Amino acid sequence: MTSKNSITVFAPASVSNVGPGFDILGFALEGMGDTITLTKKEGTVYTIKAIGADLPTDPEKNVATVALRSFCDAIGYKGGFEICIEKNFTPGSGLGSSASSAVGAVFAANQLLGAGYTKEELITHALDGEMLASGNRHADNVAPCMLGGFVAVKSCDPFNGFQVAYPEALKTLIIFPDVIIKTADARGILPREVSMSQAIQQAANMAGLINGLMTNNFQMIRDSLQDQLAQPFRKKLIPGYDEVEKLCQQSDSVGFNISGSGPSMFAFFKKEHDLSALKQSVSEFYKSQGIKCRFHESGINGRGVEVLLFKD
Amino acid sequence: MTSKNSITVFAPASVSNVGPGFDILGFALEGMGDTITLTKKEGTVYTIKAIGADLPTDPEKNVATVALRSFCDAIGYKGGFEICIEKNFTPGSGLGSSASSAVGAVFAANQLLGAGYTKEELITHALDGEMLASGNRHADNVAPCMLGGFVAVKSCDPFNGFQVAYPEALKTLIIFPDVIIKTADARGILPREVSMSQAIQQAANMAGLINGLMTNNFQMIRDSLQDQLAQPFRKKLIPGYDEVEKLCQQSDSVGFNISGSGPSMFAFFKKEHDLSALKQSVSEFYKSQGIKCRFHESGINGRGVEVLLFKD
Repeated sequence: MTSKNSITVFAPASVSNVGPGFDILGFALEGMGDTITLTKKEGTVYTIKAIGADLPTDPEKNVATVALRSFCDAIGYKGGFEICIEKNFTPGSGLGSSASSAVGAVFAANQLLGAGYTKEELITHALDGEMLASGNRHADNVAPCMLGGFVAVKSCDPFNGFQVAYPEALKTLIIFPDVIIKTADARGILPREVSMSQAIQQAANMAGLINGLMTNNFQMIRDSLQDQLAQPFRKKLIPGYDEVEKLCQQSDSVGFNISGSGPSMFAFFKKEHDLSALKQSVSEFYKSQGIKCRFHESGINGRGVEVLLFKD
Repeated sequence: MTSKNSITVFAPASVSNVGPGFDILGFALEGMGDTITLTKKEGTVYTIKAIGADLPTDPEKNVATVALRSFCDAIGYKGGFEICIEKNFTPGSGLGSSASSAVGAVFAANQLLGAGYTKEELITHALDGEMLASGNRHADNVAPCMLGGFVAVKSCDPFNGFQVAYPEALKTLIIFPDVIIKTADARGILPREVSMSQAIQQAANMAGLINGLMTNNFQMIRDSLQDQLAQPFRKKLIPGYDEVEKLCQQSDSVGFNISGSGPSMFAFFKKEHDLSALKQSVSEFYKSQGIKCRFHESGINGRGVEVLLFKD
């Protein structure tokens, strides 16, 4: 255990369900996420402060404190905490908000208490928090938020997955139309069975996406960023999906798809690509539909959750 | 067109349906395949000689001549050929025998006639022959036989696929129990639909297999060489499948699965691994079942079909 009393960490937002990686592939974003400060307190109680978003302050209902409890139970730590969660993006936007909070909380506690868990070992505790928000134990937001970069998930408890190398010249544009999609609705719309040929095509696209990322083959990334399982159903829940995809394609995007369960969408581009004209077109389109729209343009975050500072 | 009258090529045998790559991933073998000699003849007739296997000699019913016809029609060549197919493995064993013949024939003709097609462009014509044998246009034998190494197939007409890098230290053991499985039976046993979770797991294993191959991660290759779609059904058609898998695992195999639609099975090993004890165990097991069994131990063939010699 360190002698420090407080730690501040940054846990990035993330894109899950990356094309053929429905439920199993995600990547972390630069410049968007949770800044979490964890401070030891007398007693055994957890208290929550939220900045920038309206989050539950009941420790039983906040993903960060549920994850924190799971971790502290595992290491046998009974002490209290104040946790301050500063969010610079909107929960429910399909960018792994709950994963950021859960990952940030357990990573901060592990560092502050000197518990010595690896990031991989912390994933299962972050998932205990994530479960609360999504009802599902999928690690394709939690794992990239924790580890950074692109992470493929083979199984969750214990975590079995791996980072996938990607082109340094890759950046992403997140497009966030201001509509609400509940994760439960996005789940409910999916079929329980798929055709054999769809399952085969999904695996083929996954092969192409992994190979394309690892060999810096932008054409292959673009061609492979297809989802047979969820996107055909979920895109109907996102106003303007087809129009925005078309605008991105016309701007030479390196693939386009839904981020998480939406409503955010993401497109890849080469880093040098100026996206201002595209953003203007998409803004104008959404304005014509009476929908507000925001953007986030960033590189891939290759580091994952990280310590910002310790304090006495 | 060359002035030469005759060409001899070697078209390797291949393993398709590589774990999660059902219908879409195959690799080529060293030391096993078709040696095909194509000789120009007066007139327009194709004649067939077969050595080492009992092949159809009607040009309408032989995959090599059907593929050859498809290619010659495409380039507008009306001349006759004698084609001699020397096979050092058994058709119907699940090692891409028909693909070897079809690939060898079109590759030989392209070289002999100086048509200048790329190997990728030839694939669609080889598939016209392969169709005759399998009833399906899957390129996961044809493509690795043509190109060499591991090849993933995204679509067939025109061919869209790519070679996947693999560890130089990888070798394979083919285990061929002397029983007959008809491709049509192996197809008929498969369901038309699969569960969402199986489709997702297949894609996750594909991500792991591609990443494992490209990063020389033998543990990841082994863990990912699973098939959700065909192997659970088809292994029932192969006597001793579970026992042979277990023997291979006990010998530190780097994954095990069905080759093609069987009855051959393949296991990966590190190159330095002495497999003589394993072969003896498997032989003894099959002997106890009254089944003959053969082996082929080889590296991965990274070159694909190649010219052996030209003759006047």
